[in-house]
Amino acid sequence: MSGTGVLPFRTVSIVGVGLIGGSVGLAMRQRRLAQKVVGVGRRKSSIEQALEVGSVDEATLDLEEGVREAEFTILATPIGVMEHLAARVAAAMPRGGLLTDVGSTKGLLVQQLERAAGGSLHYVGSHPMAGSEKRGVGEARGDLFEGALCFLTPTPQSPRQAVDALREFWRALGATVRLLTPTEHDRIVAVASHLPHLVAAALVNLATPAVMECAGSGFRDTTRVASGDPRMWTDVCMHNRERLLEALRLFRLQVDTLMDILEDSREGELRAWLESAKALRDHRFSQQQSKQTDRS
Amino acid sequence: MSGTGVLPFRTVSIVGVGLIGGSVGLAMRQRRLAQKVVGVGRRKSSIEQALEVGSVDEATLDLEEGVREAEFTILATPIGVMEHLAARVAAAMPRGGLLTDVGSTKGLLVQQLERAAGGSLHYVGSHPMAGSEKRGVGEARGDLFEGALCFLTPTPQSPRQAVDALREFWRALGATVRLLTPTEHDRIVAVASHLPHLVAAALVNLATPAVMECAGSGFRDTTRVASGDPRMWTDVCMHNRERLLEALRLFRLQVDTLMDILEDSREGELRAWLESAKALRDHRFSQQQSKQTDRS
Repeated sequence: MSGTGVLPFRTVSIVGVGLIGGSVGLAMRQRRLAQKVVGVGRRKSSIEQALEVGSVDEATLDLEEGVREAEFTILATPIGVMEHLAARVAAAMPRGGLLTDVGSTKGLLVQQLERAAGGSLHYVGSHPMAGSEKRGVGEARGDLFEGALCFLTPTPQSPRQAVDALREFWRALGATVRLLTPTEHDRIVAVASHLPHLVAAALVNLATPAVMECAGSGFRDTTRVASGDPRMWTDVCMHNRERLLEALRLFRLQVDTLMDILEDSREGELRAWLESAKALRDHRFSQQQSKQTDRS
Repeated sequence: MSGTGVLPFRTVSIVGVGLIGGSVGLAMRQRRLAQKVVGVGRRKSSIEQALEVGSVDEATLDLEEGVREAEFTILATPIGVMEHLAARVAAAMPRGGLLTDVGSTKGLLVQQLERAAGGSLHYVGSHPMAGSEKRGVGEARGDLFEGALCFLTPTPQSPRQAVDALREFWRALGATVRLLTPTEHDRIVAVASHLPHLVAAALVNLATPAVMECAGSGFRDTTRVASGDPRMWTDVCMHNRERLLEALRLFRLQVDTLMDILEDSREGELRAWLESAKALRDHRFSQQQSKQTDRS
């Protein structure tokens, strides 16, 4: 890797040591990307567990203490509290440090965090496409980001060296980095992630007990994401409300088209529509293996 | 098991030796539920493979020859050709024999097969809720029906002893048997199986290349069923058109409700809606393990 030379960091702070924050810590420590990783948690039990699984070198419940020496801080909390935390981080961290977040929406959040970072920190948003419906630092894995996509969402205000440093950082964790505007990012994840979540929840919510009893592996997998954390997903959907509404409108057009096809018994069209879906999906997911090894 | 004593059968014929037909054969032979299992296939390669994996004792491409001695025949072909095949089976099989099918829709199909069986065979429809997007006798497993639900869909014309014999048969393969009318059955599977399939295909069909590139495990699982065989699913959707349209109308109401909630930023309602989905789903799928051992 031809890095820009910021690695390894001296002190890195991770605010929020759950699945993502804990995995970032583990990955950094395994790859020796920082001399010291400090975890900041909200509960004693979670910071103790973060120490135990080796996600961090040190851990504290005190945000200001936790970021005081950091040259790089990663916000890995629920997105609803990030704005408030970022303002406190900006006040406590040494000036000129690097700040990012791992939130799964970007439009509103990047505005909030850019403002909070103000003139004192260099902020660029990140979104590593990794994780699952599991939660907590107990599920953290040092290889969670290997082969994953990670979006960076710079704005016209983003310092160039912060973008370069973050690109180098995520690549060092094994991710493939892509740059998008916050709006482009939100439009894509609305369809790739937030819409499937709501659709899965809609399927479950209309199922009667008789339907649930006979639901098999197809229903189970189609609705898996609906077992995700409702609080986190409410935040995500509210943050990405406008793009999600656009995605829902497109989706409803698909459903309407399909209902027209069925009303008129247009069998050939139905088959073509199902064939298109199968081809698109098989193309993407049979290629996954080879994509995961491409980290150039 | 307190059987009614029809087991073991002398000669059983399986018409269509794919995943389901092949698994029925394997399961019967492993459990010695028939003195002889005869497979009828459409291609030489598939009947050779059925013999090779041990799904059948004998195999033939000739339908009439394959069912000539059968006291019990199971139709395990695509549903679109079952009506035609059932008429040929009824003409070739000994009078008074037992006939069932494993089709995943029942309303129209049961009418067709009941008529085809006429006065010469005792027909009742079956639908074992097992299988996957995989296909072919190479994927057959003798334990495929263990812990699975199997619906029987008798009508007022169904002979009582045929219902009893089929209940005993599917229980002997490890399935839990439920009786439903064909219409009740189709209403349930429309929501549990056919709607998720169309919803998954709709998600894939609206994804742009940029969306597909960043689609992760959530999108992958939510759309897994869309990789199923388009021809088979077209048949299924056309057979169950009316119930599926009812399910799509209910589903569209859910989507409309959700869009209203998002338009008005009613955060509390959104969260309650996501919490309901999570609770319903977790209740069903955390109980799965214990249900699968309940085969009484």
